[in-house]
Amino acid sequence: MAASEDSLRRALVEKQSTIESQGNAVRALKASNAEKKAVDEAIEKLNALKLEKSSIEKQLQASVSGNPGSSVSKEAFRQAVVNTLVGRLFFIPSFKIYGGVAGLYDYGPPGCAIKSNVLAFWRQHFVLEENMLEVDCPCVTPEVVLKASGHVDKFTDLMVKDEKTGTCYRADHLLKDFCNEKIQKDLSITAEKAAELKHVLAVLDDLSAEELGTKIKEYGITAPDTRNPLSDPYPFNLMFQTSIGPSGLSPGYMRPETAQGIFVNFKDLYNYNGNKLPFAAAQIGQAFRNEISPRQGLLRVREFTLAEIEHFVDPDDKSHPKYSEVADLEFLMFPREQQISGQSAKKTCLGEAVSKGIVNNETLGYFIGRVYLFLTCLGIDKDRLRFRQHLANEMAHYAADCWDAEIESSYGWIECVGIADRSAYDLRAHMDKSGVPLVARERISEPKEVEKLVIAPVKKELGLSFKGNQKKVVEALEAMNEKEALDMKSSLETKGEVEFHVCTLGENVTIKKSMVSISKEKKKEHQRTFTPSVIEPSFGIGRIIYCLYEHSFYLRSSKAGDEQLNVFRFPPLVAPIKCTVFPLVQNQQYEDVAKIISKSLTAAGISHKIDITGTSIGKRYARTDELGVPFAITVDSTSSVTIRERDSKDQIRVNVEEAATVMKSVTDGNTTWADAWANFPHHSSVSAEE
Amino acid sequence: MAASEDSLRRALVEKQSTIESQGNAVRALKASNAEKKAVDEAIEKLNALKLEKSSIEKQLQASVSGNPGSSVSKEAFRQAVVNTLVGRLFFIPSFKIYGGVAGLYDYGPPGCAIKSNVLAFWRQHFVLEENMLEVDCPCVTPEVVLKASGHVDKFTDLMVKDEKTGTCYRADHLLKDFCNEKIQKDLSITAEKAAELKHVLAVLDDLSAEELGTKIKEYGITAPDTRNPLSDPYPFNLMFQTSIGPSGLSPGYMRPETAQGIFVNFKDLYNYNGNKLPFAAAQIGQAFRNEISPRQGLLRVREFTLAEIEHFVDPDDKSHPKYSEVADLEFLMFPREQQISGQSAKKTCLGEAVSKGIVNNETLGYFIGRVYLFLTCLGIDKDRLRFRQHLANEMAHYAADCWDAEIESSYGWIECVGIADRSAYDLRAHMDKSGVPLVARERISEPKEVEKLVIAPVKKELGLSFKGNQKKVVEALEAMNEKEALDMKSSLETKGEVEFHVCTLGENVTIKKSMVSISKEKKKEHQRTFTPSVIEPSFGIGRIIYCLYEHSFYLRSSKAGDEQLNVFRFPPLVAPIKCTVFPLVQNQQYEDVAKIISKSLTAAGISHKIDITGTSIGKRYARTDELGVPFAITVDSTSSVTIRERDSKDQIRVNVEEAATVMKSVTDGNTTWADAWANFPHHSSVSAEE
Repeated sequence: MAASEDSLRRALVEKQSTIESQGNAVRALKASNAEKKAVDEAIEKLNALKLEKSSIEKQLQASVSGNPGSSVSKEAFRQAVVNTLVGRLFFIPSFKIYGGVAGLYDYGPPGCAIKSNVLAFWRQHFVLEENMLEVDCPCVTPEVVLKASGHVDKFTDLMVKDEKTGTCYRADHLLKDFCNEKIQKDLSITAEKAAELKHVLAVLDDLSAEELGTKIKEYGITAPDTRNPLSDPYPFNLMFQTSIGPSGLSPGYMRPETAQGIFVNFKDLYNYNGNKLPFAAAQIGQAFRNEISPRQGLLRVREFTLAEIEHFVDPDDKSHPKYSEVADLEFLMFPREQQISGQSAKKTCLGEAVSKGIVNNETLGYFIGRVYLFLTCLGIDKDRLRFRQHLANEMAHYAADCWDAEIESSYGWIECVGIADRSAYDLRAHMDKSGVPLVARERISEPKEVEKLVIAPVKKELGLSFKGNQKKVVEALEAMNEKEALDMKSSLETKGEVEFHVCTLGENVTIKKSMVSISKEKKKEHQRTFTPSVIEPSFGIGRIIYCLYEHSFYLRSSKAGDEQLNVFRFPPLVAPIKCTVFPLVQNQQYEDVAKIISKSLTAAGISHKIDITGTSIGKRYARTDELGVPFAITVDSTSSVTIRERDSKDQIRVNVEEAATVMKSVTDGNTTWADAWANFPHHSSVSAEE
Repeated sequence: MAASEDSLRRALVEKQSTIESQGNAVRALKASNAEKKAVDEAIEKLNALKLEKSSIEKQLQASVSGNPGSSVSKEAFRQAVVNTLVGRLFFIPSFKIYGGVAGLYDYGPPGCAIKSNVLAFWRQHFVLEENMLEVDCPCVTPEVVLKASGHVDKFTDLMVKDEKTGTCYRADHLLKDFCNEKIQKDLSITAEKAAELKHVLAVLDDLSAEELGTKIKEYGITAPDTRNPLSDPYPFNLMFQTSIGPSGLSPGYMRPETAQGIFVNFKDLYNYNGNKLPFAAAQIGQAFRNEISPRQGLLRVREFTLAEIEHFVDPDDKSHPKYSEVADLEFLMFPREQQISGQSAKKTCLGEAVSKGIVNNETLGYFIGRVYLFLTCLGIDKDRLRFRQHLANEMAHYAADCWDAEIESSYGWIECVGIADRSAYDLRAHMDKSGVPLVARERISEPKEVEKLVIAPVKKELGLSFKGNQKKVVEALEAMNEKEALDMKSSLETKGEVEFHVCTLGENVTIKKSMVSISKEKKKEHQRTFTPSVIEPSFGIGRIIYCLYEHSFYLRSSKAGDEQLNVFRFPPLVAPIKCTVFPLVQNQQYEDVAKIISKSLTAAGISHKIDITGTSIGKRYARTDELGVPFAITVDSTSSVTIRERDSKDQIRVNVEEAATVMKSVTDGNTTWADAWANFPHHSSVSAEE
């Protein structure tokens, strides 16, 4: 049980005063030129006190917000977050003045700034750190590419239609809602029936169109809005279709993912990398899914930003040179076995999971570790982040292993990053369709003897029979794959001749035994040719940002206790604006100082906002806390100003000329607020705030 | 006439040696703690020498590349640039392995890095500097939005079809090509005929479908590929069409520009800005135009990145607080009058153009100045950049004034940025279509008497006639605009009753004189309500980057003189990679040092590439010059390294620990290469290079 609210508040006040005296001690040590070790120890103690304070604050928040476990408070919490997000334009339903479009949202100013910060950090953390080859391909994609990838045939959801109004629904959603409703609300059902419904929920993703249709009929499910009967389920392709060029004859789609743009460029990128493996390519861009009926607000949308990495690696060597840098990390992992046996995710050492073979290979493990670091640096709570391994039925047949980074939100555990070892599937698919070899080559030190197919057309004979078409027949013969050639060989041996389709001629020709010799010969090979495996970490940027909103949001009472104030505890790295500049009261002198500081912040590249309205300082702080602005500079004299940190509400005093430098250092991450707190005099007047 | 190549080469060698001794002088002064003034003067002299050297280099380049004015050398130059761009993957024809799609290109690794640098600088230079509200809206746009903006009806090109094969062509392109060909190559045509063809070229953009069709028939123009007859011209809408949701009943388009997303959000953004004008919103994103037959390579594509600003301003006050910061700028301007009278662009002081009324207003002038600074900072040659005012026939009827930043390339002068004062057109269009007031309000100190329309439905009478529908009739009456209301008033006065369409009922009702009173009354108003004007700078990012490629590219002879080497002189701000790290020879010690330096560069956020291949140092320099990498760090000892600047090929020597700091400083723009050159010992061995 949590302690009472009152006792927590008292503990908080006490902790704050201990922190202040420890801060004074640190400054005293520094002023007396004490040994570095003594100063460091004092700072460490200060930081520990801060951590304790923050833990008390969390308990207090939980006690104020009610029990966060219950579904009622989850929805209330989500409503509070979403109200703040909408109210402060973090996002806006797109085309709102025309009634909006389901599944389309704009990023308003603070949301847009957060998105651009998240993407900049992604580039720093992945692209720059690993020297990845970043590319930028169009969204408009011709059909052939998505035919090869399988999206034209298989990127579908099963849909049912209201037979009278034509309104469309996802078949699995209707069945899921029906089962959940029955189990939770219908007290008359038998234990046997309940077990059956639970089983349906468990196998929902595996049901075929026929099976879904049978269940919908059996349970008498009708259209939710009208109670009209429903059509049989049929597949609906989720890609937005369009037409490229004016003729109407070249179908195209808006890409459903960015990955294909990288796969089709493999040959050039491999070459750019000096024909060496491993290497990774990356892409950030829009992707599109024409959802049947978008639900879950910002989590299931029709257009979204993906950031994808395709790491190409030798299938025989999936080690990673920097693996040791992440092997000691510990976090929540949820392997297949644990899911099946009904356990929950456990804190696991990544290195152990790899060495035990739970994670398929080092490179996959390396990326899982890097994703963990990425998400927690953004401010995702590590206790509400888990890596869940795909069950056998979730995984494509070709995949070697697949883990999702799932983040817990008020909607449950949300898949935000997928990290899959897709083996050679994608490159092979495009190689087959395009005929362009998408392979890597490696010199081998000891030449290997291999059996090779040799197709030798007898040009003279062919020329006599086919004249001007001889060349095309020769090419077609040489292009046969091993199976085709061996079939022809045996037919020629038994029958003496065979019908053969030459696609460049568009017709069949008769090939006689004398026209071609087919044999298998032993050859020495000095290089190995193979299709690389691809390991793909794929990030749903919008989902990560939404979960970050939920993890960063908290309520705290105003000083008078009459109001609950909204705060986003974004780290400076992602905060939409790094600081605000306020003159304490409206007067020309303070305003001038505020403008000087603003100019120096702009020069230092720090996004900030200047607020010269006459609103009370407490209100102005509350307004920027709600935007997650980490620091506020208040001008209360012409020589020095105060800087206030958002979560602790602690204030330090710095000279006007130093303000931008201090801000630069704490927002760049070169130093922390604790350093600033240790280095500058504290400002104790809690003034009009809260 | 340019001096001969040999004499230029000699001058270059001399200049280089003078620069070296001046560099030594600077260091000697520093070492002897000379007065700051003396050191500064010596540095100034050094910089002047460098400038002279660079001017000689330019002359030499011009003399090597041949006369850059002739169209033959223009195409040869373009071919050299494009070969380098394709060879080094600056761009890649999209979906190349499937034969590609006209008008779609990928940014490969160096191109993608340059794009991301250009966009980051755009954000810094515009969004951050002006505190703009950046938003991020979807590409998928419902029809109603683009109906309101006029794109559904008017965003078309006139197309003709080959009547046998169905191949489509732009009608104006065919006519243009025909006229140009005749004028240039047919020596038999009369002076009269030539004048007629020139006139057609001049009015080409103004021709209607009928006029174009008549000319095509008159001149006997046929399909260029087949010589088949052509259809009459008809409009083809350039938007990619799609369908939103599964029903197939909600048409949508891929946005042709990003601006509409901002206009439809005006109300929320104005509110976010504290209901104050002026303010600007900005958006970076993909836009789509389904071109009939894309030509001009990277300049006319079907999908591209736009960066757009919508600056909302009071139509009665278009002053700008920061205007004075740009008023003194001088650059090439090309006002309407000069174009009509056949003059060419002239170097003009921006402030004068504004004060003489050539540029319509201060805010428009301010953005012209900021765009000039933006483009030249990127590396666009100021002598090949002009601001051209739209002629009357180019400008929309509602626009107050419009200027294009045009950059000269091998294709001629290319429109890269449009800066238009679009008055209140866009907001009014969306207000009319959506019924949502997109207006600003301003308190006025002295209340004004205005005549206002008053519509007073008589609810009792309406209730008797319309019962449950009364409310909808009342709302429809109150929603009438002034003209509708006055028409109804006069009809009621003459006929006693009138038919009235209530759209929420979907039917007409009969309104009698007793049911509504309509009058005009005088009222005192304390605030002014108005539709803001919008000033729109709109940047074609891909076009800017392509022109930057051409302006940055040059050839220089290899040292042996047997090879022409490609160089891009990108400033560090946009260079795709800031520096390379090379061990001079292959050995473990040097490789370890290279790795240490690489790590410190990553930590400092500097994109770089490490090259440990055994290739000769000269070849490695040439390779990175071709990517436009400004600096190369060569490890030739374990304690210190050389840093080489790309264009001068000058080298300094710095300690291993300092390397990253020096790089950070010169690539961030905090210091210049000249500073580094003045502060560190010079390394004179030109080694194996060139």
